[in-house]
Amino acid sequence: MHTDELAKRCIRTLYGRDSVARALDIQLLEYGPGHAVLSMLVRQDMCNGHGICHGGMLFTLADTAMAYASNSHDQVAVASSVHIDYLRRVSCGEHIRARAEEVYRGRSKGSYSVQIDNAAQAQVAHFHGTVAILSARVLDQATGDST
Amino acid sequence: MHTDELAKRCIRTLYGRDSVARALDIQLLEYGPGHAVLSMLVRQDMCNGHGICHGGMLFTLADTAMAYASNSHDQVAVASSVHIDYLRRVSCGEHIRARAEEVYRGRSKGSYSVQIDNAAQAQVAHFHGTVAILSARVLDQATGDST
Amino acid sequence: MHTDELAKRCIRTLYGRDSVARALDIQLLEYGPGHAVLSMLVRQDMCNGHGICHGGMLFTLADTAMAYASNSHDQVAVASSVHIDYLRRVSCGEHIRARAEEVYRGRSKGSYSVQIDNAAQAQVAHFHGTVAILSARVLDQATGDST
Amino acid sequence: MHTDELAKRCIRTLYGRDSVARALDIQLLEYGPGHAVLSMLVRQDMCNGHGICHGGMLFTLADTAMAYASNSHDQVAVASSVHIDYLRRVSCGEHIRARAEEVYRGRSKGSYSVQIDNAAQAQVAHFHGTVAILSARVLDQATGDST
Repeated sequence: MHTDELAKRCIRTLYGRDSVARALDIQLLEYGPGHAVLSMLVRQDMCNGHGICHGGMLFTLADTAMAYASNSHDQVAVASSVHIDYLRRVSCGEHIRARAEEVYRGRSKGSYSVQIDNAAQAQVAHFHGTVAILSARVLDQATGDST
Repeated sequence: MHTDELAKRCIRTLYGRDSVARALDIQLLEYGPGHAVLSMLVRQDMCNGHGICHGGMLFTLADTAMAYASNSHDQVAVASSVHIDYLRRVSCGEHIRARAEEVYRGRSKGSYSVQIDNAAQAQVAHFHGTVAILSARVLDQATGDST
Repeated sequence: MHTDELAKRCIRTLYGRDSVARALDIQLLEYGPGHAVLSMLVRQDMCNGHGICHGGMLFTLADTAMAYASNSHDQVAVASSVHIDYLRRVSCGEHIRARAEEVYRGRSKGSYSVQIDNAAQAQVAHFHGTVAILSARVLDQATGDST
Repeated sequence: MHTDELAKRCIRTLYGRDSVARALDIQLLEYGPGHAVLSMLVRQDMCNGHGICHGGMLFTLADTAMAYASNSHDQVAVASSVHIDYLRRVSCGEHIRARAEEVYRGRSKGSYSVQIDNAAQAQVAHFHGTVAILSARVLDQATGDST
């Protein structure tokens, strides 16, 4: 299978069964080998009493983007350590977007940067994570579906 | 007001209006000045297709514990940067617990370590965060309630 | 003074009195507002017994690049928290280069990414740091020299 | 060989050939399986023009403590990602101490916390790192010396 087609199939498979992405209404905008762009509307129930988006919700959006980007080569990858810097406040009702890019891909380890922007295209958070690459496949080898 | 009573009132106020904590069924076990212990049952909808808890859900639990610990002095504190290390896999159905402790508290900055353990008391994640301390109060000065 | 000229003067001032940069023979290649590019030859005394560059030396090179980039606006900035990911081994005798870029600049906080590359232009480390911006100036206001 | 004796031999071996530790006059105070305590006097040439210790020097001290703690089981371990938070300023002439403790030790990965304190026993930095555990041994199997 072509690299690009393989990546798209892996990411669609992950997204299709991702109950957290569904609960947060995360949309999959662009995706391919080593990258993924997601969007999310910050709902009231994702915010604290002051109408500011919970840091855990921003993290989860970025983490999801890294998961898709890092599993796009049909090898299961799991987050190992992650750093996030909060740069600007995100308020209830804002549309935000996370863009994950592959910085490094070795045999057993990968490294990903994720930038979260608001609708005005100002960066609201910087996320950088390392993943461990396992031997399992994302797709079922017989059917080409998820294992 | 006594430091301990003030801390308890701040944390109960935050917990009472925390819609994310409610959505994740986070329980508040112990709390006081600069510390908080929370627990959570890992539900199916917090897991990926392999029955492994989503990293964003672990992060959100730890982040909530840090938020309570860092806002317990009646000064609003917001996360600035956070690092998380995933040590052991957490599966669907597990009960986990996050314990936040104050490492440092300055005038404008605080630093918190959060340890997440599973039911066997093995550490599953290490979380360390820095908060910015703002001038706003957590409690309404007139009523002693949340602002 | 012009922004670009101000930045160059701030960075030359810092570099001129930086005894750590001198001890490590760090070279200043390019610099301007919010960015700096430095290079270093990995000497034997920067390596462990296996001929691998000490992580602290890579960190110090990247940290120096962030210090120059973040102090280029004539406001003293000090590192607050930093994350580094080691991607590829660096051996004794290699020439490496650190490129710091400003990701965010607020009133009291800045955020910088530093990429360290080897001579083959493969990335060997990813560094991301947050700085606190203080009220002091880098340059002496009377003479235009360092305070 | 006894675990404690093995740890001490591994750490003495690493320390004996550590040219960076020698250049910074790092002293080895206590050490054993999974832990190490080091001290350092902050010299003038480790400081910037304002007499403040360079962040890279604090990092290098903590990183050295983690290296000794993580290599104490006679398996070569190398830093993978590290996070450091600077809590209090450290000035020229201060005596500082780094204490590394093992948080987690798996088959291929370990996690270490390092606390740096000043002479007044106030914490000046928090360091947390992940190491990759390799198959190579620290000690030469024939002689019990370093490989």
